[in-house]
Amino acid sequence: MNPCEIAVLTTGSELLNGDLSDTNTAAIARILNRHGYRIRYSLSVADNEQDIGTALNYLCRQVQVVIVTGGLGSTGDDRTARAAAKLLGRPLAINDEALQMIRDYYSRCGRSPEAITERQALLPQKAIPLPNTRGTAPGFWVQQQQRNLFFMPGVPHEMLAMLEQAVLPILRRTVPGGLPAVQRHYRLFGLSEPKVEQLIPYRELPDGVEVAFGIDYPCVLLKLRSSGDAAEQRLDETELLLRQVMGEYIVGREGETLAGQVGRQLTDHGLTLALAESCTGGLIASLLTSWPGASAFLERAAVTYADSAKLDWLKIAPEILHRYGAVSEPCALAMARGVRQAADTDLALAVTGIAGPDGGSRDKPVGTVFLALAAEDTEQVRRYQFSGDRNQVQVMSAHMALEWLRRYLIGRQESVRTIPAGTNN
Amino acid sequence: MNPCEIAVLTTGSELLNGDLSDTNTAAIARILNRHGYRIRYSLSVADNEQDIGTALNYLCRQVQVVIVTGGLGSTGDDRTARAAAKLLGRPLAINDEALQMIRDYYSRCGRSPEAITERQALLPQKAIPLPNTRGTAPGFWVQQQQRNLFFMPGVPHEMLAMLEQAVLPILRRTVPGGLPAVQRHYRLFGLSEPKVEQLIPYRELPDGVEVAFGIDYPCVLLKLRSSGDAAEQRLDETELLLRQVMGEYIVGREGETLAGQVGRQLTDHGLTLALAESCTGGLIASLLTSWPGASAFLERAAVTYADSAKLDWLKIAPEILHRYGAVSEPCALAMARGVRQAADTDLALAVTGIAGPDGGSRDKPVGTVFLALAAEDTEQVRRYQFSGDRNQVQVMSAHMALEWLRRYLIGRQESVRTIPAGTNN
Repeated sequence: MNPCEIAVLTTGSELLNGDLSDTNTAAIARILNRHGYRIRYSLSVADNEQDIGTALNYLCRQVQVVIVTGGLGSTGDDRTARAAAKLLGRPLAINDEALQMIRDYYSRCGRSPEAITERQALLPQKAIPLPNTRGTAPGFWVQQQQRNLFFMPGVPHEMLAMLEQAVLPILRRTVPGGLPAVQRHYRLFGLSEPKVEQLIPYRELPDGVEVAFGIDYPCVLLKLRSSGDAAEQRLDETELLLRQVMGEYIVGREGETLAGQVGRQLTDHGLTLALAESCTGGLIASLLTSWPGASAFLERAAVTYADSAKLDWLKIAPEILHRYGAVSEPCALAMARGVRQAADTDLALAVTGIAGPDGGSRDKPVGTVFLALAAEDTEQVRRYQFSGDRNQVQVMSAHMALEWLRRYLIGRQESVRTIPAGTNN
Repeated sequence: MNPCEIAVLTTGSELLNGDLSDTNTAAIARILNRHGYRIRYSLSVADNEQDIGTALNYLCRQVQVVIVTGGLGSTGDDRTARAAAKLLGRPLAINDEALQMIRDYYSRCGRSPEAITERQALLPQKAIPLPNTRGTAPGFWVQQQQRNLFFMPGVPHEMLAMLEQAVLPILRRTVPGGLPAVQRHYRLFGLSEPKVEQLIPYRELPDGVEVAFGIDYPCVLLKLRSSGDAAEQRLDETELLLRQVMGEYIVGREGETLAGQVGRQLTDHGLTLALAESCTGGLIASLLTSWPGASAFLERAAVTYADSAKLDWLKIAPEILHRYGAVSEPCALAMARGVRQAADTDLALAVTGIAGPDGGSRDKPVGTVFLALAAEDTEQVRRYQFSGDRNQVQVMSAHMALEWLRRYLIGRQESVRTIPAGTNN
């Protein structure tokens, strides 16, 4: 039995009836991995004394450390302490230290606990209570027959605070962790997941580097992991190899989004931006302004759904709408020019298209989108045909527009026309 | 042992290292619940023959039906079939029917399978292969000692298609389900989760109705569930009771969002809308336009980050900016008036505030937000103080603005000032 291997038991009927997916296990894993522990089993059962007992018993036979979340509240549904008491042969009793924690929590909130809340101090005998800084129910730690059992609340933010503040220090003292895993995350835009996988030079990668994938539509997330002394060096080597084959598609690292990167680039370059959005309905502006500091570069954005808005704010010539329609190359270009002139910015981006589900025609089916970029040194416009539902077309259009900006800002001279079109994965 | 109780075993190291949360269990539960089955255990282990074997053995002692996902691919990581073969005492052998399924899949895609792919046809003897309409790896079904074991791929869309098309028909024939569960979902805005829970008249609720909660910030999701013949009637009764105590806070049912409801109301009333957004940066427009049909009511939206945009597009008097600043009651009102006049719409909403993390002052700390509504029959403006990070302030501001519209459209006469302020949960 490897002492660094841990089992997680999550309890709650909402985890088994389709209401909720268990996210506690992954959150616990991310924190424990950094300290050299590894989750080997993750089990979910309902708030049912018998099932919790059976599960605890099973897990204690597999590993030396079991972390339990959920079922510590004061309602009738909370049966974890009772199941633990039974399994351990240590009857429940009011734990004075736990009771004080509950009273302290209430006094910090300026209230007094009700009798029912104080039931949360009923712990198995000789359990060590763990303070809950974010809620009322204390956790607890039990040692028995070389097993360490930690019980925490199920509410994620309460659980995570208790894990970091109370469980991890005890765990590191009691069961030293192994070599921590180091991770690196990359966000790619413009390649599908199978395509990314195909490009990875698996045979050339250093030994001991794990590669994993995720999707944050329309981006692919690439995750590298390695552990041990030379982990950083192995990841450096791997990153170098990856940059050679897919470097231009990497639009963010360690959680940075494409919009975040574009915002940072604009700020670094000291350039200003205006937007004219039709089918994306404000999504590009919203993505850019979700990052602090957007006021440094974003002058304004127009969501011009009606033609009158295009005529009025963007000064589109009525002939353009009349002759080519609002979803057209000339209109997209005129929108970009118009908003750039109105806002007097360095750059302007415009999007017009048919997000669906209605409004498509034979010539311009749903998913037809025109992007335009206007700057002092260039004016560009291009037609795309995206697939997917309304939301996917909007999200893809917004990301493609941001990718135009990113590539323009990298190259300045380089044409955005070099972006491949087949990126709608 | 209740035959309708099922265990789910999900395999894959990504489920235990923090890369991915298991969503397969909840998806399986939602489908099986509708047919009267119930998930009793959900267990995750890595792609490790021994752990898969131990887990299968444990689950087979608890329930009669085990559903396994993951580990059926052709790479070295995929060890589920081998673990099953060992546990069942039925050596792996090429299953001709499974081999044909793989070849058929490739021929539908116009390619021929590689030798490594055909390894996916190695199944325990006497296993019945299950077709995979979305990918290459067939699933399989094994019966032994009154146990039914179903093995499916881990990729969610492949797994769900196989569950509906292949597993469910066999399951219903072999192990008839119990009474199906009926669910109803409500979305509430303006009450915190503890407040919602406190308002629920638990003692008056009919027996056999389960109540559960979720959060989709800043809304609370309330879920009712009941099963059996009178389930619909019990839920009707419950809904009536809930509407009496919290009806005005219910902003959507069965997945409808607040923006979706406001869009529908505007369309039903035949009213048009214009928006002027500052600190929300296009979020309100984006939420409204994520629903099809927004062009019926949304004329335009201005994201006016810079003062020049407010002067130019919204015709704000320079004295207002000079005297009160852009984050002020007079400015919010002028923005709403200005955009309503520019767009010539029935209604206009404006938001200006300090989303943070910087930009706050003693008088106007981060989270200070002014909302204004302009219509022919009313003009209203109000200051809010929201808490949380930048994203929470933006999301809360956008929802409060939409809630103003919703209440205005319900009452038309009723003042939006009746919305309680303490809704920032």
